[in-house]
Amino acid sequence: MNQSGKEIENLIELMAKLPGLGPRSARRAVLYLIRKRALVLTPMADALSLVATTARECVTCGNVGTSEVCDICSSEKRAIGQLCVVEDVADLWAMERAGTFKGRYHVLGGTLSALDAMGPDELGIPRLVARVRDESISEVILALGATVDGQTTAHYVSEELEGRCRVTSLAQGVPIGGELDYLDEGTITAALKARKDL
Amino acid sequence: MNQSGKEIENLIELMAKLPGLGPRSARRAVLYLIRKRALVLTPMADALSLVATTARECVTCGNVGTSEVCDICSSEKRAIGQLCVVEDVADLWAMERAGTFKGRYHVLGGTLSALDAMGPDELGIPRLVARVRDESISEVILALGATVDGQTTAHYVSEELEGRCRVTSLAQGVPIGGELDYLDEGTITAALKARKDL
Repeated sequence: MNQSGKEIENLIELMAKLPGLGPRSARRAVLYLIRKRALVLTPMADALSLVATTARECVTCGNVGTSEVCDICSSEKRAIGQLCVVEDVADLWAMERAGTFKGRYHVLGGTLSALDAMGPDELGIPRLVARVRDESISEVILALGATVDGQTTAHYVSEELEGRCRVTSLAQGVPIGGELDYLDEGTITAALKARKDL
Repeated sequence: MNQSGKEIENLIELMAKLPGLGPRSARRAVLYLIRKRALVLTPMADALSLVATTARECVTCGNVGTSEVCDICSSEKRAIGQLCVVEDVADLWAMERAGTFKGRYHVLGGTLSALDAMGPDELGIPRLVARVRDESISEVILALGATVDGQTTAHYVSEELEGRCRVTSLAQGVPIGGELDYLDEGTITAALKARKDL
C-alpha cells in the first residue's frame, strides 16, 4: 500500500538518489514540486529533458557543457598559454566562481590511484602533455586537492611536464576567515613554511 | 560568462529552488545527473513529466495522488468511522510511514492563522463537519502540530465537532529515544501531567 501513487513514489525514489537528498527530503522536494507545478515542476521536467539530450564533454578540456567545444575553450577572451589542471568538472566550476583565473582548463577526471586502477592513461595525462606541446602552453597550474592522491598526481604530472613549461601549484596555507585554533597541524606547518615578508 | 551552458545553468537554477538544496548542492546534483544520464537523468525527466500531468488532490481527503479519489480513500481495507485530521500532505505521509493508523484522513491544508488570513473556511473545516455527518464518523483524531497555531486549530475543530463524535488528539510526551536532558520544559511538563501507572 503506498500513500500517494506509483508515479509519485517513483519520482521520490529517483530524487532520493541525488547527492544531498535522502528519502525524507526527497519526499519534501516532490511535494514542493507538485505544489509549484507551473512554476517549477514543468520547467524542471523540460530542463532535464533538454540537458539529457544536449549535455556533453568538451573534446578539448573535459568540461561539461552543451557544445562540442565548451564556452571557455572557445572564448577569445581567455588567455592562451596558461592551463589550469583540475581533478573534475566541479573543481573547474569552483575555480570559475572565484573568477580570478583567465586561462583555460584541463580536467583529469580523477587522480592517480592504484586501488581504483586509475593510471596516467585513464586520466588522459598523455593528452595533457600533447596539449602543452600543441597549444604552446607556457605555464601549467596544478589545482589538485591537498590529499595524498591529489599530491601524488601533482608530482607525477610535474615530472611529465619537466622541461616543457613552467609548472606551478595552488598555494597552501590558512584559508580566508580561518582561525588557527581550528586548523589541522598540516595546514599550519604548510602556512609556516610558505610564510611571506610583510 | 557561464562555465557550462545556458541549458545546464537553467537546470541548476531550478534545482536550487528545491527545499534542502542550495546553489552549491544543486550544482553537485546536476553534475551527478549528467554523469548518470541513462540511469537517473532520463528516467527523472520522464517521471517529472508524468507527475506534472497526473498529480492531483484527492477530492475526498485532500491527499496528493494520481487519481480523483486517493488510494487510501478508495481502499476497502481502511476502517470506516475513524478520521485522522492532519495539517498537510507531508503529515499524512508521515502517519502512513508509522503504519499504525488504519482509518482515513482529512487534510486541512494549514492551520488557523490570523496573520496568514487562514480562517475556518479556507481550511475547509465546514467540509470536515459535513464528512463527519455524512460518513457516520465515530472518532476524529487530531494529529496537528504541537505549535500554538496547531493547538488553536485543534481547539477550534474540537468545538465545532462537539456532540457529533468523539474527538481525540495525539498524546504529548517524551519521544522514543529522547533523553530528558535534551528535552524542553514544555515537553517534560506535558509528559509529567500525562504520566501513566506501570
